[in-house]
Amino acid sequence: MAVNLNPPDPKSLREIRGVKLGYAEAGIRKAGRRDLMLMSLAPGSRVAGVFTRNSFAAAPVRVCREALAAADSMRALIVNAGNANCGTGEQGLAASRRTCEAVAAALGCKASEVLPFSTGVILEHLPVDRIEAALPRCVSSLGDANWADAAAAIMTTDTVPKAFSRTVEIAGRVVGVTGMAKGVGMLQPNMATMLAFIATDAAVSGDMLRRMVQDTADVSFNRVTVDGDTSTNDSFVLVATGGAGTPDIVSRAAPEYARLYAAVREVATLLAQAIARDGEGATKFITVDVAGAASVADAVAVARSVANSPLVKTAFFASDPNLGRLIMAVGNAGILELDTSMIDIHIGGVKVIDRGGRAATYREEDGAREMKQAEITVLISLGQGEGSATVWTCDYSYDYVKINAEYRT
Amino acid sequence: MAVNLNPPDPKSLREIRGVKLGYAEAGIRKAGRRDLMLMSLAPGSRVAGVFTRNSFAAAPVRVCREALAAADSMRALIVNAGNANCGTGEQGLAASRRTCEAVAAALGCKASEVLPFSTGVILEHLPVDRIEAALPRCVSSLGDANWADAAAAIMTTDTVPKAFSRTVEIAGRVVGVTGMAKGVGMLQPNMATMLAFIATDAAVSGDMLRRMVQDTADVSFNRVTVDGDTSTNDSFVLVATGGAGTPDIVSRAAPEYARLYAAVREVATLLAQAIARDGEGATKFITVDVAGAASVADAVAVARSVANSPLVKTAFFASDPNLGRLIMAVGNAGILELDTSMIDIHIGGVKVIDRGGRAATYREEDGAREMKQAEITVLISLGQGEGSATVWTCDYSYDYVKINAEYRT
Repeated sequence: MAVNLNPPDPKSLREIRGVKLGYAEAGIRKAGRRDLMLMSLAPGSRVAGVFTRNSFAAAPVRVCREALAAADSMRALIVNAGNANCGTGEQGLAASRRTCEAVAAALGCKASEVLPFSTGVILEHLPVDRIEAALPRCVSSLGDANWADAAAAIMTTDTVPKAFSRTVEIAGRVVGVTGMAKGVGMLQPNMATMLAFIATDAAVSGDMLRRMVQDTADVSFNRVTVDGDTSTNDSFVLVATGGAGTPDIVSRAAPEYARLYAAVREVATLLAQAIARDGEGATKFITVDVAGAASVADAVAVARSVANSPLVKTAFFASDPNLGRLIMAVGNAGILELDTSMIDIHIGGVKVIDRGGRAATYREEDGAREMKQAEITVLISLGQGEGSATVWTCDYSYDYVKINAEYRT
Repeated sequence: MAVNLNPPDPKSLREIRGVKLGYAEAGIRKAGRRDLMLMSLAPGSRVAGVFTRNSFAAAPVRVCREALAAADSMRALIVNAGNANCGTGEQGLAASRRTCEAVAAALGCKASEVLPFSTGVILEHLPVDRIEAALPRCVSSLGDANWADAAAAIMTTDTVPKAFSRTVEIAGRVVGVTGMAKGVGMLQPNMATMLAFIATDAAVSGDMLRRMVQDTADVSFNRVTVDGDTSTNDSFVLVATGGAGTPDIVSRAAPEYARLYAAVREVATLLAQAIARDGEGATKFITVDVAGAASVADAVAVARSVANSPLVKTAFFASDPNLGRLIMAVGNAGILELDTSMIDIHIGGVKVIDRGGRAATYREEDGAREMKQAEITVLISLGQGEGSATVWTCDYSYDYVKINAEYRT
């Protein structure tokens, strides 16, 4: 059960001029479910992406990196669920390339203009023939208004499709930013991976788009954690079609950059939060805010240490205001010269730690009341400087173990 | 249920000349259980220790660090269970110092010659009056042969006392090495902390003892992980009484150093393994061996990434040979320029990954058979160099969540 997360209302998802979406049942791993998604892009669309740092980067990740190193103008993204095409060696690379060639033939573009994405079981070969067989149905279903269906077609063990839109005014015109994501752990069992695709019909230069995708990832997808693991296939791609007819954004100092970035970041943040809300076995959505750190890096380290601690996460599941675990996790972040006597911690509206010790005003029943909420914010003030960061996560429940222990059976 | 771990046979624990052990029920947190342990040391005994790196280091850890920075000759260790004396500020420091003064008065030594250790709930003040009240009973019970009882007196949620002995010949005489430990996570819920005390009646210079305690920790207690967290109170202390009448070991190049170190390391390794065997909710004992790394640090990083991955640990619990999770965890270790096509992995006697892909000879039923064992060794060969390391851990079961979610209720 996802925490306060509903399927997107298709009407809430703004069409992006220059983007068409198609989907099909390819039977890649299981029959009778949509598992292939095609996003076709108008000529001149620019694309930038960030990818997993896992050494076992999957074949499609390697093909994407190669393609984006050579060019930033792309014509299509092809996404399959059910098979990650990871740990598959040269044969896996050939399979991803063949997928791109099939899409290129169907759309009348070059294979180097098609980016492939895969999510699903690791160490099994990709059934490219099934993708080729389903591709014509995918192409014939291409349409402007298919964002919600497309978001459902890339799911694996997600329980809810994830898609959001925002609009922003650029050069006197309204442009749209619409994105979708899948993933319920930063790494899911076998049906792995976070994939996120955000498109805008603003026009952005390749350099600025690469900057924006990295900046966005740093404060959204890189700030969500379910189990601390990182998939072999994690990918986040930002597309700018220019379909709105606005001039190219070519400088980070331009006010248009700031406005577009704010909208992209908002969509990415909603998608990242949706991943934590739909975390495996999640019963609670947790926001960890760290302020007063010596640097943003320190703030992220403390927030991650708390958000990833199994002991903190099981305490949230149990609605147990276990303050000892919280300070243990803060102390484990590896921050040098942290003066613990400067640290304050709030859970929701309740001050629980005051200058490194239990707050004199703290009553256990107040902490227990805050811990019973479905959405909980922990605010940690380090008293060292001005660095701050937010990380989103979920609790660890019996179902986390159950889902992961019984996944393949 | 601990995995293949029985309480020590008191007869198997060699007495250490110069060490006497006493214990008592002090009622520190719960009535009717032994929770106070005193180890008195003959004059001239030398002590060295390593302590937690957690920023919220508890009051007794700070007192130990101060005392050992000033001198290496100590007369007693005093250990209480039930209260960690952590997050307790200046009042906590005063409480630890008062404990040392009470022991010093009882034994006729200086307070600066007494090291305090605490394990238990965090953020609550230490009831020193109860320790003082129980101390006379502790002193009157002091004896040479009390290692097994003493090991039981320092337990918190441990299910089995942990103590081991070895002997070694130094300068023609048999000397003993006997140690005890408590801890069932590197960090336990509120009843936190790994504590380990190893004593020998060999004579070792202060410099060599400090070297030996660090070297030992690096390959034993620092190589065991239950949940990846580190307690605020973790402490490992090595005592050399000189009671065997052997000459001081003053050089790391001396063959006596190597022989004593081997025995100390063996006792420490057995204690570290016992902690994983008694891990919270553990149903399996896992050994992760990494070979062929570019450095020992790389090998440790890969072994830790595998041993700490919740996805790998739940797969062990489920006896699921989930190879995708294994390669994901290897790939997540952050090793630069790791050529995944050089990686082989064995589970027990079965080769599962060959040159980065599924081994051609691998059959799922062979993997499943190995995963059903109570003791499982995973061997990961990176093919990069000659660095190797071993990390011990346990699986993640429903009971891990249950124990940690329900701990305080």
